[in-house]
Amino acid sequence: MNQWGLTCSRCSARLPFRYQNMKCDCGGTLLVDYDLELVAKTLTKASLHERYPSMWRYQELLPVHDPANIISLGEGWTPLLRMPKWESKLSLRRLWVKREEQNPTGSFKSRGFSVAVSLLREAGATKAAVPSNGNAAGALAAYAGRAGIEAFVFIPMDCPSLIVDECPLYGAKTILVDGFIHDAAAIIESGRGEQGWVNVGTLKEPGRVEGKKTMGFELAEQLGWTFPDVIIYPTGGGSGIIGMWKAYLELKELGLIDCEMPKFVCVQEEGCQPIVDGVHQSSQPTRAGEDDSLLLAASSTIPNPTGMRVPNPPDLPLLLAIVEQSGGTALAVSKVQIAEAMRCLGTEGISSSPEGAATWAAMLQLCTDGWLKPSDSVVLFNTSHAMKYAKLGTSAAIPIIRTYDDFVMYRSL
Amino acid sequence: MNQWGLTCSRCSARLPFRYQNMKCDCGGTLLVDYDLELVAKTLTKASLHERYPSMWRYQELLPVHDPANIISLGEGWTPLLRMPKWESKLSLRRLWVKREEQNPTGSFKSRGFSVAVSLLREAGATKAAVPSNGNAAGALAAYAGRAGIEAFVFIPMDCPSLIVDECPLYGAKTILVDGFIHDAAAIIESGRGEQGWVNVGTLKEPGRVEGKKTMGFELAEQLGWTFPDVIIYPTGGGSGIIGMWKAYLELKELGLIDCEMPKFVCVQEEGCQPIVDGVHQSSQPTRAGEDDSLLLAASSTIPNPTGMRVPNPPDLPLLLAIVEQSGGTALAVSKVQIAEAMRCLGTEGISSSPEGAATWAAMLQLCTDGWLKPSDSVVLFNTSHAMKYAKLGTSAAIPIIRTYDDFVMYRSL
Ligand SMILES: Cc1ncc(COP(=O)(O)O)c(C=O)c1O
Ligand SMILES: Cc1ncc(COP(=O)(O)O)c(C=O)c1O
Repeated sequence: MNQWGLTCSRCSARLPFRYQNMKCDCGGTLLVDYDLELVAKTLTKASLHERYPSMWRYQELLPVHDPANIISLGEGWTPLLRMPKWESKLSLRRLWVKREEQNPTGSFKSRGFSVAVSLLREAGATKAAVPSNGNAAGALAAYAGRAGIEAFVFIPMDCPSLIVDECPLYGAKTILVDGFIHDAAAIIESGRGEQGWVNVGTLKEPGRVEGKKTMGFELAEQLGWTFPDVIIYPTGGGSGIIGMWKAYLELKELGLIDCEMPKFVCVQEEGCQPIVDGVHQSSQPTRAGEDDSLLLAASSTIPNPTGMRVPNPPDLPLLLAIVEQSGGTALAVSKVQIAEAMRCLGTEGISSSPEGAATWAAMLQLCTDGWLKPSDSVVLFNTSHAMKYAKLGTSAAIPIIRTYDDFVMYRSL
Repeated sequence: MNQWGLTCSRCSARLPFRYQNMKCDCGGTLLVDYDLELVAKTLTKASLHERYPSMWRYQELLPVHDPANIISLGEGWTPLLRMPKWESKLSLRRLWVKREEQNPTGSFKSRGFSVAVSLLREAGATKAAVPSNGNAAGALAAYAGRAGIEAFVFIPMDCPSLIVDECPLYGAKTILVDGFIHDAAAIIESGRGEQGWVNVGTLKEPGRVEGKKTMGFELAEQLGWTFPDVIIYPTGGGSGIIGMWKAYLELKELGLIDCEMPKFVCVQEEGCQPIVDGVHQSSQPTRAGEDDSLLLAASSTIPNPTGMRVPNPPDLPLLLAIVEQSGGTALAVSKVQIAEAMRCLGTEGISSSPEGAATWAAMLQLCTDGWLKPSDSVVLFNTSHAMKYAKLGTSAAIPIIRTYDDFVMYRSL
């Protein structure tokens, strides 16, 4: 059995493992820290070769002690789809889309909650709550349902209705919040003492980052134990980026890879872009919360919030540091670019969420700008399904016919 | 390179391979026939161990000559989820759900169309059409989009709107039909000469059955090269059942398995149940088409058609023969049972389509009836996502709050 502790990503303080409160006294984020020498004894390329294609194949690097506590619904090991036509069109060495929407809850959030809910069970928790723009709520609902843990999900009321509808289907207590995701978070914090629920919000507990880390492990393994030059990821709270960065560091230290750190590119939507602003405004990043009112005003004009709409990421400095350290960048794309990208991915057979489509839009933008080079290999993350964001709005003009003659008539119009 | 021909499932006539018209002169269905001695040389347990988890790992048993023609979006090798809590609750030896909704187009239809569209490309076709209750339309749309083939999908106008909406997103010419799936099929047949499209409807071409066959291969491989005692499957046109039956026969002849044929249980929805009627009415099965008006009348009362609503399966006698030969059965479940089953699967963390939920309802029914025995191992197929069938109708009463006090008040109501 492996041992693990926590290390602060900012001041490097080391602490014993705990299930809640990932904030260090210095304000940094506490991340799980494994005994990699021990891990290296059993987690090898050869041993992985014998394991089942699931994110739990990396069990030594996931902080669950007793395998009996693992709550799995079939998450991970999602396809990595090559886009050869676009490689030549755009002059890119390699282009892939990681199809995270094929996870059990229709989004990459399955990964984080598979680990988080396993940890809830290991800690003996019976009640959990999450603030979410939708996909995290659905994932907590599903995994908690499977685990027999009571789930409370708090979702901004303007989130896509289908994502909201899923939560009661999974048996979660579902509440809409007249406000933003941080308002939902505040409600959960207010009720913590009285309700006794565990807050499984972004960076509130160790499981979600650890689960998302497996996206990085898989990427490396699926590419033959290397990373692409560039990873383009739709970023909200940021645990996906943090997780994949951590995956790189762990694999490197284990000697399983020997490549450069991939350039992490954070994509956000115009109007709510704290990471983009942080990367481009100064090397002294805007502290989370500082320009809150401005962001709030801007993002309230966006009609359909996506998972990228997080005005106050819980650890913005860490995200900015990762982007900088990796040589990456951050950019915001518009709703128009996103809509166009969804159509483009659609005609390639990929049902993409606005977030996934945003990575395509960003990739096109970075090709135009010359930031992406013909020598680059690039992976985009399609983090969720188009379906979840209905109405797709594409069907207004679908004709209704009775006979083949009707069809001919309609076609000739 | 493997060679293959066609064999009639009814009169055993052998014919050369062809890309269209799978009807034998005798009225039977022509199925692809492989040189299994040749296949056995390269398709072994050891060679499979080295291959990527995708349905294309069984390439020698899929009728595509040139791998360059394979159109893949990341289909197959879907999770097989154990349901331990329910095994003890229901006294079943083993119970699994095969999560086919995790395929790239959100349903098992990805498999059939990956092969069918690969064959279209291999045959040089540029235009294809399909009549569909929705999921097949979405799958043709996606794979044809990826392949650069023009797709026309004809869908009964009362099918779930989200499934319909997806098709234009994938770039397909989408047409609603004021009628049933066979009316849609008739329209396609009428236009074949003029439009030059290939009809990729159920059993019209060899690819779809072959693709669905991989569900059977995977099941056997995931279970350690054996089949479960019972497979419960939501049956419409029937190519899933035909495919899995064929998978069993091929694996058996290859010596990769050594077990009994699984009992195939076909589930349908009350009101449109030609297979159920065929199994229970007589050993001389009702021929397809005979009681057409009756079924039509009955099924027109069903408000939300599902993939099981196929009044005239293209080869009913073959389906009845498979059910009988395997010692299986067929049963119809009601909308009420389906809705209840969706809720139950939901609280287990599984987003199930009405068709998938129908297999759960049927399983419960067969436990109650004593048809399923405590010694049985059972696999259910969740063929599609709940999401695709929005409105889920579960969210009418979701409260909207602003503060934690609002939450407390609402809870105390
Ligand atoms: C579909 C989707 N993509 C991306 C994100 C942002 O991910 P992260 O929190 O890892 O930054 C979310 C978060 O809600 C999401 O739902
Ligand atoms: C979700 C779903 N389940 C089951 C079926 C029936 O499958 P088959 O045609 O293999 O009988 C369909 C067909 O449309 C479907 O869409």
